[in-house]
Order: sequence, then C-alpha cells, then structure tokens
Amino acid sequence: MKQYRRGDENLAFLLRYENIAWYEAGSVRILDRRIYPTKKEFVVCHKYQEVAQAIADMVTQSAGPYYAAAMGMALAAWQCRESADPLGYLTQAAYTLSHARPTTSVRMEAVTQGCLRAAGQALAAGRPLDQAIFAYSLDMLEARYRRIAQTAVYLVDLFPQKGCIMTQCFAETIVGAMLREADERGYDISLICPETRPYLQGARLTASVACDQGCSVTVITDNMPGFAFRQKNISLFTCAADAITMDGYVVNKVGTFQIALLANYFHVPCYVTGAPDKRHHTIEDVTIEERDPEQVLHFMGQRTAMPGVKGWYPAFDITPPELITAVITDQGPFSPLRLPEYFERQNEDDGFLV
Amino acid sequence: MKQYRRGDENLAFLLRYENIAWYEAGSVRILDRRIYPTKKEFVVCHKYQEVAQAIADMVTQSAGPYYAAAMGMALAAWQCRESADPLGYLTQAAYTLSHARPTTSVRMEAVTQGCLRAAGQALAAGRPLDQAIFAYSLDMLEARYRRIAQTAVYLVDLFPQKGCIMTQCFAETIVGAMLREADERGYDISLICPETRPYLQGARLTASVACDQGCSVTVITDNMPGFAFRQKNISLFTCAADAITMDGYVVNKVGTFQIALLANYFHVPCYVTGAPDKRHHTIEDVTIEERDPEQVLHFMGQRTAMPGVKGWYPAFDITPPELITAVITDQGPFSPLRLPEYFERQNEDDGFLV
Repeated sequence: MKQYRRGDENLAFLLRYENIAWYEAGSVRILDRRIYPTKKEFVVCHKYQEVAQAIADMVTQSAGPYYAAAMGMALAAWQCRESADPLGYLTQAAYTLSHARPTTSVRMEAVTQGCLRAAGQALAAGRPLDQAIFAYSLDMLEARYRRIAQTAVYLVDLFPQKGCIMTQCFAETIVGAMLREADERGYDISLICPETRPYLQGARLTASVACDQGCSVTVITDNMPGFAFRQKNISLFTCAADAITMDGYVVNKVGTFQIALLANYFHVPCYVTGAPDKRHHTIEDVTIEERDPEQVLHFMGQRTAMPGVKGWYPAFDITPPELITAVITDQGPFSPLRLPEYFERQNEDDGFLV
Repeated sequence: MKQYRRGDENLAFLLRYENIAWYEAGSVRILDRRIYPTKKEFVVCHKYQEVAQAIADMVTQSAGPYYAAAMGMALAAWQCRESADPLGYLTQAAYTLSHARPTTSVRMEAVTQGCLRAAGQALAAGRPLDQAIFAYSLDMLEARYRRIAQTAVYLVDLFPQKGCIMTQCFAETIVGAMLREADERGYDISLICPETRPYLQGARLTASVACDQGCSVTVITDNMPGFAFRQKNISLFTCAADAITMDGYVVNKVGTFQIALLANYFHVPCYVTGAPDKRHHTIEDVTIEERDPEQVLHFMGQRTAMPGVKGWYPAFDITPPELITAVITDQGPFSPLRLPEYFERQNEDDGFLV
C-alpha cells in the first residue's frame, strides 16, 4: 500500500489549501473565509478572547478552528508571560477557546489540552510557553496532514479511473489531498459541489481548491443534488465530518444528510472521511449548534425575506450509519457499525486527536 | 363537501397573491418577481415579443407566465389591429409566447390556443380582437381560481388541526388559498419554506404570501429540509407542479424531488396540488429546461465562485410517483398511479387547461 511521504513539500502543498491561523508574538492572524475568494483579508487578534470570538463568528471553518484554537493558546501564553500562574491562566483560555462553538467542543478540548501539556513541559524546562505551544501546534498540523494524506490514499482506492464525484461543503485538506492523489494516479475526476448556504463554503472554498488544482468543478445550488444524481452519472459522494460518533453517526455541515439519502436512493456509495471520536459514545452526546437565524434570511448582506418572516439555522445535521457506506480513515475504510475497531487496529498513537 | 364560492371577493383575495400580468391598449405590465418583495417594480412590454422575453427571463414565475402569455396575445392583437391577416399574425405570436420556456410549452399552448379561438370568434363577430382575448384571459383566471380554491378545500381536508407544513418554491395562489381555508376552519398551521435558490422564490414569494396572511412562517436554506424533518415534527409536505404527467411524475421547481424523498424517509405524506396534463402521456414527453449556469454562480448580482468554476442550472426536477402520496386536484385526491381517472370523473370541462 502506498505510504504518505513526510516532508516540507507535502506540508507546503497542504498548507496552501488550509490557510491556517498563524501565531506571532502578540497576535494571531486568521484568513477570513467568510469572504474568500471574493476578497483575501485577514482578521488579526491581539487577545485569545478575540480568537474565540473569531471562531464563534465563523471567520474560519472546517479544520481551521482547531488551529485557530491552538494558535490562540500560544497567544494566551504570550498574554500571561508575566503572570505568577500561567497554567491557571491557560486553563481558563483552554476552556474559552474550546467552547467557542458547541458541536465541536470535544475535539477542540483535545487540542487545547495538548497545548496545556506542552505549556506545562515548557514551564518545567524554563522555556517560553508561547513558543512551546506554537511548536506543538505545528507538530499537530504535520500529524494531521500525514493522516489526511493517508486517508486520501484509501479514499482514492475507491474511486473509478474516470468519474464524477459529489462533495459537500468545505473539506479543504482532504479535497486537496484526494485530488492530488487521483491526479498522480492519472485518474480523470470531476467534482460537483453544492454551494452550501448560508455561507457558501462549497461555492467559495471547496470549488476554489478544486479549480486551483486544475480539476473540472461544477457548482450547483443546494436544491439540485437530487437532479444531479439523476442526470450526471455520479460515481460516489464523499464528505468529511465535524464529528463521527462511536455508534456510527456523522455530524457534518447541514445538507450532508439529505445528500447521503439521495446517494442511497441512487445506489451510489457514500464515503465519509475522518476518524471516530472516542469521547462521543453515541449521537446523544452531540449538541447541534444553532446559529443566528438572521444569517439564513440574508445573503452577503442583503435581506432575502420580508420583515416578519422567521429563520432557522442549524449549522450541522446528522447522517445515520445506515446511509454511510464506509468511514474512510488513515487506517483504511471501516463500517460505520464497527468503528471501535479503528482504535483496536491503530498501531501508533501520536496523541493528536484531530 | 364545501364548495368554492364564486364572486369578486374571492377573485380580489386571490389576485392579491398573484399580481398577474395586465393588458391595456398597447402594453402589458408584469410585476418583476425577480426582485419582489425587496422592490416592487413592473416590466412594461410594448410588443408581444417583449412579453415572451420577459417570460424567458423569469420576470414572472409559477402561474404568472400563463397570464403573461394570454395578455401578450391581447397585445399581439393590438399590434396587428390594422393587419389584413390578424389570425396569421396571432398564430405566430401564439407559437413565440408558448415556447418562451421549454418545460411548460404544452400548458402554454393550451392558453394561447384558447386565445386564438377567442380571437377567431371576435373576428367573425366584428368585435375588437384584443378585448376578446383580454376577456378570455379573465375568464381563464376566474376558472383557475375556482379550481384552486376547490383544490385547497381538498388539501386542507388532509391537514391536522395544528401542525407544521413544509412547502417548496412559489405556489402563490394555492398557498394563499390553503392558508385562508385552514384559517376559516380555525386550524393552527405554520409553514417552513426552503428559500429556493437561485431565485429565492421560497424566501421572497411563498414566505411573503404566508406572512401577509398572518401565518407563522420560517425560511430555511435548501440544504436544511432534511434536518427540519428530523427536528421540527413536520406534518406534511405540499407543493404545486409545473407539469404532472399521466404516468404520475411531477415536474416542479428543482429541489422538490429531494424534499419528497425526505418526506418518504420520514413517513410524512407528500401532496402535490394541480391536475394531470393529458398531453404529457409519460415523463419522457417532458423537456427539463436548463438555464444560464451563470445564475447559479451569482447571488443578487454578486459572484460566489472563482473564475474557472462551472455552474449547472436545471430549473425543474422530476419526482417519481412512488414518492407522491396523492395528487390533490379540484376533483379531489388521486393516486399518482391512477391519474387517468381524473378525466373520467371530471363532470364539467370548461376548456381551461391551466
């Protein structure tokens, strides 16, 4: 089986599609994905509390918040550099950053807890805490990229040599990695991306990654996947996940569930990339975030409905295991009904949970 | 069974939600539904060819194009008022107007043929052709409203006394009529309307009709119906149709099919209002219109995807009979598998096919 090759080249390739948050002494810079690619602007935070607010405001999405949180921890370490109890300060920062949004707080805690451990070791060794956390963040990033590149290899093993693939929302790194892997194998793959209202991550972000890699990519509105399945000879549907529970449910950007149902109806496989979350034993453990309904009633600043009309904005939805053909992990594909085996077969635990 | 009450009061009520095209000597005025309710502006046409273009440009939608075509025929009659062969001129106009959009041309031909017959009778009687066509258009409108009000009675017979109903797109008259009927019975009904990209007829038009009638209405984006079915205790899904084929397929605004599939998954009934089209024997007879893909890549004038990204814009989709609980007509509910019975049981044929 093909192995992921470590190295700067891979990191640079993947970083290109990540545009992760970045810490420098006294600030964290985050690409504003709410307006990208129309404009390329950055939100600059001078306090970790501002990083938490940026995460809550969805300045960055998908994997972005995890790195924003880690870099926010480095910023918090800088903020408390003259404190008598830096670990107490950082513990508070870890809570604030990991709870900026409810649905992903379990994974976010894994990140901030790792940062806290790195800070504790640096404190004992007399090294600067912010630099230790920053270094930890980069290690976490490299580990994540290794996993994602390996996941992409397993995913592309399930691709046809020529075909059309439907995606959902913004799985930036895995989309970039899978298209590179398919390209290296000489596969002829095109993508169909639903636009993903209200934030249009599909039209703005997923489609941009694919287009930038020279892949033929077609954007549709979110009411068109059904007719696309009927008309476009789609080979498979693939998406990432914000949470995969141990009992096989997938929590991902709202809209995933209805596309998975369509895939099932048309006998098209549905592959979800990622790894199960040990701390989400069942779907009952997951809180689905509801965001400001006004965002559903607006589009890029313009109101779409008359005054008096209400909105509802669940950020995620839930896809049950019976609609998922397989969860594709860095350890290979797993049945959504047998996810505990992922941890049995994992021969190396680097401690990075996202 | 409750009977529809004829009369000006009903017509005025229903017209309020229709904002139909209107002919006066030398011009046809059409409400621009592309921007309503943000702005209330009218497109004024001085030639029938401009009316055909307005229909193609989706200045008006849902039932609007049928009345725009009829009023356009009156305008054509005015244009050829000094012609030696007015019926020849009108025959050309009938073709142009009825073929402005492909999917609905069969129903549109029924309208323009009716206008041609009215013109022929007026010519024989020495009466002005434009006024004869205008009068025919109003008769057609009154007949349609009678049918829709009667359809609403049968539809509301299937409503719970208290419940939440999901709709799709812009079925202005039937939405207005069903909410009035439910209100008269003292029912407590709320609506959930998917916004219906790219033109947002759900957010702008359906939701406006409901809000205007004092109904609690919630707009969601088109990727949220699945989660709404899971979370919101939806009693039923109802929509209208741009075509209902004799073999039980429903052609309606894109997105209808995937909501019908969701309704089926959640064991929620799916009721389609309208009447079967005798001239669409099977779904194979229907051409699904594909519109300018650029419209999918824009929102209210702003581009949403980077250059190089493609779009696809099917205006309608196809819902198969097995997902439709019943077709609700002015003659009562019919199984989508037994639609020919609609014509057997129809005890009065007023010649108006839409």
